[in-house]
Amino acid sequence: MFLNFEDFFELTVYFMRQSNLFYKTLKETPKEASVFSHKLLLRGGFISQLVSGVYSFLPLGWRAMRKIENIIRGEMNRIGGQEVFLPSLHPKDLWVKTGRWTEMDDLYKLNDSENRSFVLGPTHEEVITPLAKKFVLTYRDLPFYLYQIQTKFRQEARAKSGLLRGREFIMKDLYSFHATERDLERYYEKVKAAYWRIFSRVGIKKKTYLTFASGGSFSKYSHEYQTLTDAGEDTIYICQNCGQAVNKEIKNITPHCPSCGGTKFEKAKAIEVGNIFQLKTKFSRVFDLHYTDKNGDKKLVMMGCYGIGLGRLMATIVEVNNDEKGIIWPKETAPFLIHLVSLAKNKKVVEFAEKVYKKLEDLGLEVLYDDRKGKSAGEKFAEADLIGLPYRVVVSEKTLKKKSVEVKRRDRKSSALMRLDKFLEALKKNF
Amino acid sequence: MFLNFEDFFELTVYFMRQSNLFYKTLKETPKEASVFSHKLLLRGGFISQLVSGVYSFLPLGWRAMRKIENIIRGEMNRIGGQEVFLPSLHPKDLWVKTGRWTEMDDLYKLNDSENRSFVLGPTHEEVITPLAKKFVLTYRDLPFYLYQIQTKFRQEARAKSGLLRGREFIMKDLYSFHATERDLERYYEKVKAAYWRIFSRVGIKKKTYLTFASGGSFSKYSHEYQTLTDAGEDTIYICQNCGQAVNKEIKNITPHCPSCGGTKFEKAKAIEVGNIFQLKTKFSRVFDLHYTDKNGDKKLVMMGCYGIGLGRLMATIVEVNNDEKGIIWPKETAPFLIHLVSLAKNKKVVEFAEKVYKKLEDLGLEVLYDDRKGKSAGEKFAEADLIGLPYRVVVSEKTLKKKSVEVKRRDRKSSALMRLDKFLEALKKNF
Repeated sequence: MFLNFEDFFELTVYFMRQSNLFYKTLKETPKEASVFSHKLLLRGGFISQLVSGVYSFLPLGWRAMRKIENIIRGEMNRIGGQEVFLPSLHPKDLWVKTGRWTEMDDLYKLNDSENRSFVLGPTHEEVITPLAKKFVLTYRDLPFYLYQIQTKFRQEARAKSGLLRGREFIMKDLYSFHATERDLERYYEKVKAAYWRIFSRVGIKKKTYLTFASGGSFSKYSHEYQTLTDAGEDTIYICQNCGQAVNKEIKNITPHCPSCGGTKFEKAKAIEVGNIFQLKTKFSRVFDLHYTDKNGDKKLVMMGCYGIGLGRLMATIVEVNNDEKGIIWPKETAPFLIHLVSLAKNKKVVEFAEKVYKKLEDLGLEVLYDDRKGKSAGEKFAEADLIGLPYRVVVSEKTLKKKSVEVKRRDRKSSALMRLDKFLEALKKNF
Repeated sequence: MFLNFEDFFELTVYFMRQSNLFYKTLKETPKEASVFSHKLLLRGGFISQLVSGVYSFLPLGWRAMRKIENIIRGEMNRIGGQEVFLPSLHPKDLWVKTGRWTEMDDLYKLNDSENRSFVLGPTHEEVITPLAKKFVLTYRDLPFYLYQIQTKFRQEARAKSGLLRGREFIMKDLYSFHATERDLERYYEKVKAAYWRIFSRVGIKKKTYLTFASGGSFSKYSHEYQTLTDAGEDTIYICQNCGQAVNKEIKNITPHCPSCGGTKFEKAKAIEVGNIFQLKTKFSRVFDLHYTDKNGDKKLVMMGCYGIGLGRLMATIVEVNNDEKGIIWPKETAPFLIHLVSLAKNKKVVEFAEKVYKKLEDLGLEVLYDDRKGKSAGEKFAEADLIGLPYRVVVSEKTLKKKSVEVKRRDRKSSALMRLDKFLEALKKNF
């Protein structure tokens, strides 16, 4: 019934034999890795470092990334966001105009052969504001919400924690354009709700705090979403009364909780996974982005911007969801749903494993099938735990005898033998 | 039944009110535009130029782009491709190693603040070959096929035809790795078939010719896919016997058709929309990418690479599918399937239009709903023709009287009045 059903179907490989998968787990932790997520993503074959702060995403890692991307895209669409794609090569003059050509010290700058200067976009206010100017004439053209999911660049001095702080990284940035400050504020609340849905779906909401941060020269506060973890480079103070938090950078100037006035705080280390900002007229003033109101008066457009770093989010998901054996992917972000592990040592068991694989494939489920020969059960289980797919399904001589499979959730200790037909029935109902 | 059904559903906005869409058509053709696709994509509000050769994709353009992307992704998955995502910042030493640091004169080069030099990746052999080296040990690890869909950079001297020749552009590149030349050749044929499926689905196959081109120093020939259009910057010679073609650059050295030996050719202008190349050991030799064969001997890995420029493909689709009024999007690449145009001038007709919109939405169809007030029928039709969605569905006082809608295919002259219930029934059956 859906027009492009075929496209959506083809968007991912639903099932894959591990013998074909481009990946290798590492037994040793690479010495450059210091934090959990960095270690696990390298060891599990999700990413590979090219140079400091610059990573390739391998098939498993890119599948997880695209799951995260689609969750974010869906939530952006839900609040009226329209997706655009903006250049990385920004002409110098736009950055001179806003003053950030000199203000920001982490810009990548380059000259072309005709000696024109460019910035590799670390953010896109300098591009999207002039773009909006081409389309906005009157109040009737407002509001609108544009977002992009694409690579950005920053010369990070401290590129040392894997995807937590990269020099080349994928960002979602949403920019909103409004006639009035009130309308901006209303939309700002909508984005807050969308962000909570995103952080809930990717499995980090419980450890994430809405955090007051500096608003710059034009707003009292901005907000960050900070997720508690020892790998975090930020320090936040969680209000023990209302559960919102304050970033250390502004804590000294705000002894009381800006939300409830509370005075008791708990200090914690955290990662900033998102930030939202009322830019107001900061950029519309520079680029002369005006509209004509109902009375024919010329007014400046009010703007907001709302970011999420996808690589950092992926690393944070791993920081929050792991144990001593490896990653525990939340269902919606897992590269595959099921890890089918064959311990077959003879033809009959191989045939049974192939049959189970086929049945799962027929259900349209996302299955990684460990069909590899010459690996011990111990090796296979260790790798499965490291990769961390939500369900491990084992087929062996033992399970074949009972026409069963052994099912284990990655986030539980115990496993259960289930008759194959019952198991498939259960999957049909639940997925 | 599909696990991530919700994600796939959310991947696109299925329906949108034109009053909310971030776009404006231009009545005048921008003076920088020379070729059809450039004019139409600018006038229709699909893209916007930032600087010469560098474009923003606006919501309509980005939707078309993602349709194209998903078609390509699907066909890559179908031939066993595994998607990866590779960095744009390439350290200089990799490019020095292959000699292309000095050989290629269109590289964007930059230094960071610590004076390390980088290339902005125009292609990724220099990254993917060392990456493969981390994963390939023996013949058992081969073959595999990795592809990426992402932005690349080239200092094009002639950045003048819009998306046909950009400085920053989205490419799909597939790289294949094999133990033997025979296996490479076998896969090369598979990719050919996949490319034909892609060009068929995006609506340019009939005008596209498999074309012999230079194979460089290590292969006799490579192949290009060349699409006939006056906007093309290439010249090809089509063999009148077998229908394959030869690029002008090698025509002088091959008076006979390399495929059938034919000697009668027709000269034509064309755009290169894809190219496939047997790299063989060119890069594996440089990066020492070996494997151990069954006898324990060390051998070089054989490689192939296979590119499609997505922006150029989008422009080519427009070059091939248009008339004097605007674009005629092939169904699979259209930003929306249906353009619902309301000519309502009173409440009753508005209600009827809203009802039709709701019904189409319920069917899960992709609809752009021109709900705008204060535009004449003539203006709305002209814009609909310019944007070029496959089906135009008009609701007006006249159609309401007959409980009907007026349906017109963009690629046909005539329209037909259809009873709403019959129309919905037909849609249900066909989509």
